[in-house]
Amino acid sequence: MNAYRYEQNPLVTPADVKPFHEGYEVIGAFNAGIATYNDEVLMLLRVAERPVSPEPGIVLAPVYDPDTKAVELVRLRTDDERYDFSDPRVVRDVTRSSGFAYLTSLSYIRIARSRDGRHFTIDDKPFVYPSDRHETYGIEDPRVTQIGDTYYIYFSAVSPVGIGESMVSTKDFETVTHHGMIFCPDNKDVLIFPERVNGKYYALHRPTVKSIGEPGIWIAESDNLLHWGNHRHLAGLREGMWDGGRIGGGAVPLRTERGWLELYHGATKEHRYCMGALLLDLNDPAKVIARSDKPILEPEADYEKNGFFRDVVFSCGAFVEGDIVKMYYGVADTSMACAELSLREILDSLTYL
Amino acid sequence: MNAYRYEQNPLVTPADVKPFHEGYEVIGAFNAGIATYNDEVLMLLRVAERPVSPEPGIVLAPVYDPDTKAVELVRLRTDDERYDFSDPRVVRDVTRSSGFAYLTSLSYIRIARSRDGRHFTIDDKPFVYPSDRHETYGIEDPRVTQIGDTYYIYFSAVSPVGIGESMVSTKDFETVTHHGMIFCPDNKDVLIFPERVNGKYYALHRPTVKSIGEPGIWIAESDNLLHWGNHRHLAGLREGMWDGGRIGGGAVPLRTERGWLELYHGATKEHRYCMGALLLDLNDPAKVIARSDKPILEPEADYEKNGFFRDVVFSCGAFVEGDIVKMYYGVADTSMACAELSLREILDSLTYL
Repeated sequence: MNAYRYEQNPLVTPADVKPFHEGYEVIGAFNAGIATYNDEVLMLLRVAERPVSPEPGIVLAPVYDPDTKAVELVRLRTDDERYDFSDPRVVRDVTRSSGFAYLTSLSYIRIARSRDGRHFTIDDKPFVYPSDRHETYGIEDPRVTQIGDTYYIYFSAVSPVGIGESMVSTKDFETVTHHGMIFCPDNKDVLIFPERVNGKYYALHRPTVKSIGEPGIWIAESDNLLHWGNHRHLAGLREGMWDGGRIGGGAVPLRTERGWLELYHGATKEHRYCMGALLLDLNDPAKVIARSDKPILEPEADYEKNGFFRDVVFSCGAFVEGDIVKMYYGVADTSMACAELSLREILDSLTYL
Repeated sequence: MNAYRYEQNPLVTPADVKPFHEGYEVIGAFNAGIATYNDEVLMLLRVAERPVSPEPGIVLAPVYDPDTKAVELVRLRTDDERYDFSDPRVVRDVTRSSGFAYLTSLSYIRIARSRDGRHFTIDDKPFVYPSDRHETYGIEDPRVTQIGDTYYIYFSAVSPVGIGESMVSTKDFETVTHHGMIFCPDNKDVLIFPERVNGKYYALHRPTVKSIGEPGIWIAESDNLLHWGNHRHLAGLREGMWDGGRIGGGAVPLRTERGWLELYHGATKEHRYCMGALLLDLNDPAKVIARSDKPILEPEADYEKNGFFRDVVFSCGAFVEGDIVKMYYGVADTSMACAELSLREILDSLTYL
């Protein structure tokens, strides 16, 4: 698969983003949802800010307090045996078999704007910031679905009670309406289709299951975008393949002549994140027509291989212009990049079921 | 708390239920949803049937096949080191930190009918049986919400892709309409309120979370009972108390003068299951008014303490008549029982927040 990576890559890096919080450093400006508005390409960046540690051996975990509307810092000692600090992203509770106790950074959404899709100017302030008790550990990995003149923006809402998917909407990228949590924990990687299919809205989502099952992609239906049901399992992991460890929806589904094209991420059990594609029936998106046996994009460039969390390409939004798919994607949990791929080449590369 | 346990307890036991599958034994007739219909009390029993093992050292795991509509038996050797057989209910995969690989029995819903609420006659055949690919390991723990002349019956749908909550409806307990999965995995213990509150339907649900959080009770909203959203965390575990290990909704919420009374189950970390109560605001069920610091019913009778899984009282349905709460409940994951409690005594026993 040919991929034309922009010469300007990475398009936005943490160094380009001024911290919003005093005494913090920006460690990530990545996994951005994508929209076009007023002839501009907008990247809704996930900006991750980390409190600068006051001394070696101390990790500060930021927690938003919805009552005071301020961020409290939980001070943890790296020699505290109750915790495991080996993953730079999280602090684990050693008594729990899975999951984490704290995050080492606080994420929120900030807009970067561009006329040409390659050179971006970053807003001074957050666009969507944690605002309630389900978002005290931050909001992550936004996607944007435009329906008419309304942009629906949904993201992982992280707090000690779980990771769910919450949604806001805007018409102007200034004023925001909050719609609460649309998928309850444990869930992320939601992708709302840009139009109704046979009268219903559809969304992909990725439950993280504990009792039985694996992190696979599901599909749900809605009449109003707020309430979701008729959940059905759509695509699972494939042992030994590029998507054998973890998968989740990526970009908002693209309407093509052959079906709904979903650019999704898959990771191996060794946490190497690639992008591939699912093709879903135009009239029944619960039906998988084809799937990538090999990735359409994998971490090869230095900025994709090295960073806060290495070997990651992770798209949250793409456009189609003629035969060109402009896929924006987060790299190494650090920065943003863009690559152009041929739509026909992607469709021809799929294995049809 | 005074509880009058019926002299007829246990009201239904596995010995009363003729196996539906040839070569199986009924090991549970428990955790029944409750309805009144045509002057009868109906228990929608969860009947669990286990294939009789052909020889020592072999466990047969039943799996429903939606294509053939038959149950296949997976033959497992108890000396197979890939599996852990220590829990009689499940077969665990030793390489997974949580959850299970197979169930040792297949559950479905069967009706027991009574004129007096104490003596029950059990239907010969299943009422709701696994029917799709999300129910291949069975359907469990039904609850029934009557709205007008329609009875909504929802239950845990168990399959290798996860445990979610699916729903059917009926007007006559003969013909059934399927509505698919209303809460995606990992979720169970759904309770739909029997009427709209300020124009919205409400449901309690209990996500099982892996990334972060504990198995707590959440509340969701709907316009049509099929699609659910605005998920909010309602009640968590309480360290060291009777509900410190696990909680979940129990009976369909009862409207009282002081609020919505939810009889819920809680277990200690040692898996002792008791019943207690939450009181929710009549006009805003997302607001907790009061909660039981001590159980309202705990396993004391022999049939509650001994059985397939010991020390369990677990209600899925109750009625109020004047001051009397008739709480039906599963005992020891084996049989059904009923106890009468005073509504006033329950309400007075709560700790108001």
